Amino acid sequence: MEKYAVIVAGGSGQRMGNATPKQFLMLNNKPILYYSIIAFLQAYPDIQIVLVLPENYMAEGKSIISAHQLPEKNFTIVAGGSTRFHSVQNGLKQVKSNAVVFVHDAVRCMLTVDLIKRCYEQTLQLGSAIPAITATDSIRIEKENYPEIVDRNLVKIVQTPQTFLSSILLPAFQQEYQESFTDEATVVESFRTKIFLIEGEKNNIKVTTPIDLIIAENLLQQA
Amino acid sequence: MEKYAVIVAGGSGQRMGNATPKQFLMLNNKPILYYSIIAFLQAYPDIQIVLVLPENYMAEGKSIISAHQLPEKNFTIVAGGSTRFHSVQNGLKQVKSNAVVFVHDAVRCMLTVDLIKRCYEQTLQLGSAIPAITATDSIRIEKENYPEIVDRNLVKIVQTPQTFLSSILLPAFQQEYQESFTDEATVVESFRTKIFLIEGEKNNIKVTTPIDLIIAENLLQQA
Repeated sequence: MEKYAVIVAGGSGQRMGNATPKQFLMLNNKPILYYSIIAFLQAYPDIQIVLVLPENYMAEGKSIISAHQLPEKNFTIVAGGSTRFHSVQNGLKQVKSNAVVFVHDAVRCMLTVDLIKRCYEQTLQLGSAIPAITATDSIRIEKENYPEIVDRNLVKIVQTPQTFLSSILLPAFQQEYQESFTDEATVVESFRTKIFLIEGEKNNIKVTTPIDLIIAENLLQQA
Repeated sequence: MEKYAVIVAGGSGQRMGNATPKQFLMLNNKPILYYSIIAFLQAYPDIQIVLVLPENYMAEGKSIISAHQLPEKNFTIVAGGSTRFHSVQNGLKQVKSNAVVFVHDAVRCMLTVDLIKRCYEQTLQLGSAIPAITATDSIRIEKENYPEIVDRNLVKIVQTPQTFLSSILLPAFQQEYQESFTDEATVVESFRTKIFLIEGEKNNIKVTTPIDLIIAENLLQQA
């Protein structure tokens, strides 16, 4: 089956307190964005990678590809939209039918080949694979102005790559945008298709603050 | 009002893959346990600190106090129990009535004076203060075999010090143990008393794995 990775790096990274969007910040001398690209290429050398970048950083994306001698034929670069939904929608225009599509946050730079392959296999069987890990802290949910305790074993913290058959994902992204579309899984559900979780990885963190960058550097040293 | 900090360090720290319980592991040349002790003493020099330690580590606790020239008169050391509930119950035997009681995980070593003081002030007004932060990831809750999306803004990740008036906490800990007692807030609620959250701190992490130790070292360097 054909494979597409839509790597979403449309954000402006305001939380990092830095003029450079966080997906272009350096981590061990390479831009954060580089790490997920490499993981997808290692998993599937024939994968098509769609980089969704802020419009004024598309040239930067091209130079990352050439600077690190990545195979140009595997890449398409498209401009992000006003929300994550619109960014992914732009990326999906590059996807032909009958494929497995990974939608991934560029700032989750600790992505592993193993997680990618597990997502692929489950998607072939069930139609989707949404990585998630079980909470380890006490969790409460606000209900009618009171924070009610929930069994932490039932609480799943969602990660990416959110992986789908294109036959499920593409029609779902034809819908009108709704504010409840916080990730791809919610878009697919709104199209009345059930999604399936898969065990994520504790180290598959989102690098959104300076301390996250330090954590990621240390994780890379351990890997 | 009198103040007590019950610092719970009864765990054996198996996840750390280390023979030493994690609360005695060194962080910048000091045991993890030291850092929360110092935060409480800085916040309130007259606070009574009850260290709840594994029975075979009580001597180790004493030597930490003397090695770091901490004021002995502020300390009591008691043995932990078979569960967190029983450990805290043992610690609470040292608490006289009419006090504010902080119950704190020793492994949350990034505790700040500011959080301690805010917990104290709210407890005087409302009877309790349970630090919690709002989730930043997509969260799902398993319900009837399906992981339903919840609004992440309603999801609160609970921390410590869980802080209470002794007049609320002590009677609640007279109850028979139940498996649903995952923290002090759940014990108090089971005694039909509502609890009140307070804004926690992102850096107030639990150090339970080797990578957490590295994160904590980096946070200390930034502080």
